[in-house]
Amino acid sequence: MTLKKIEIGENLFVKNDEIAAENRKVLKEHNIFSINLMGGPGSGKTAILEKLIPQMKKRKISCGVIEGDIAGTFDGERISQLDVPVVQINTGGACHLEAMMIKKGIENLALSEIKLLFVENVGNLVCPAEFKLGVDCNVTVSSITEGEEKPAKYPLMFSISDVVIINKIDLSEVVGFNIDRFTDYAKKLKSGIVIIPMSAKTGENVELFADYIEKRILNNEKN
Amino acid sequence: MTLKKIEIGENLFVKNDEIAAENRKVLKEHNIFSINLMGGPGSGKTAILEKLIPQMKKRKISCGVIEGDIAGTFDGERISQLDVPVVQINTGGACHLEAMMIKKGIENLALSEIKLLFVENVGNLVCPAEFKLGVDCNVTVSSITEGEEKPAKYPLMFSISDVVIINKIDLSEVVGFNIDRFTDYAKKLKSGIVIIPMSAKTGENVELFADYIEKRILNNEKN
Repeated sequence: MTLKKIEIGENLFVKNDEIAAENRKVLKEHNIFSINLMGGPGSGKTAILEKLIPQMKKRKISCGVIEGDIAGTFDGERISQLDVPVVQINTGGACHLEAMMIKKGIENLALSEIKLLFVENVGNLVCPAEFKLGVDCNVTVSSITEGEEKPAKYPLMFSISDVVIINKIDLSEVVGFNIDRFTDYAKKLKSGIVIIPMSAKTGENVELFADYIEKRILNNEKN
Repeated sequence: MTLKKIEIGENLFVKNDEIAAENRKVLKEHNIFSINLMGGPGSGKTAILEKLIPQMKKRKISCGVIEGDIAGTFDGERISQLDVPVVQINTGGACHLEAMMIKKGIENLALSEIKLLFVENVGNLVCPAEFKLGVDCNVTVSSITEGEEKPAKYPLMFSISDVVIINKIDLSEVVGFNIDRFTDYAKKLKSGIVIIPMSAKTGENVELFADYIEKRILNNEKN
């Protein structure tokens, strides 16, 4: 009998990419636009969804959410208050979501009833960037309390992102934050990156993100 | 004082625990007390060191610092302003420091001139908790802007920590934060955990952390 040798490290990524491609196919078949929402712990990912989902509802865009956390159902419970379908995934220690977890999440959602899928990744500005999930759009949340130099210190995350949300701008008066410096660092990593300053607390500029998503959905439908 | 920069590739694969034990032995031989400072991106780890190191100097405790970042020398440059020896380690993508990186860092410090070694880990509330470095004391920084439920959502990090610093308390009036709730979550994971609310910005309570460290050093010398 033959002896098969599996190199775990490399195989993990190859297998992940394959499953990500499957996820993308399934989501495309159901005409679902999907967003991978990433960012450090406490950057405000869930708070953004709490303000954004009602805006999408007003635009008649039905949402579904996959919530990724190492442990607990805090975020899933918050989002389920918005009366949208939510699947909470606990990674049991893993520092990121993988394509297989999204596959399981998708299997637990009524896809025909969803037009927009949010995936909220584990709070981590490093590892989630390494794992493709099969979504249409990567979004990173960075809050002004975290400092201006985050793109330069965590380059991979920002270089794979379509959009960066600079959250907690309601604290600008008490927290010194040079948005031009942040923007320069981010644009050096990805010149076309879209930057949206926002306050998920007050709701300021949340509609800019909603506009962006609506436009992307319309473009997808044209193609 | 000089800032040394060491580039360490991502494929560093070693028996981490063995090297951690070696590090501990070397540090013990030189009578150095060592602290692994962990926390999410932008939680204020470097800012704490900027306020703490002058306090330790006043107490005639000489410090050395190993700065861990994925990329860049922002933190190393800030700390070198304090006129203490600093080694900047760039992990080249890796989401945490490993024992081998600390070994390299130690090799680049004049150990006989140091009584207290700070290791500032990569900004990440997940992965650094999984890698022993060989230090005496684990400290996690969590800022009030990140929310109260962090210990429950990132249990491993808090369960391996001797001390939790709740940073940015200068923002308490504008950011709602229930410290009792945070403390309950943390104590459930580790009943003896020491919790220090602090503002690295104003310097409030930094001396409590300095007291704690001084006491630990004195206890070490007695044993």
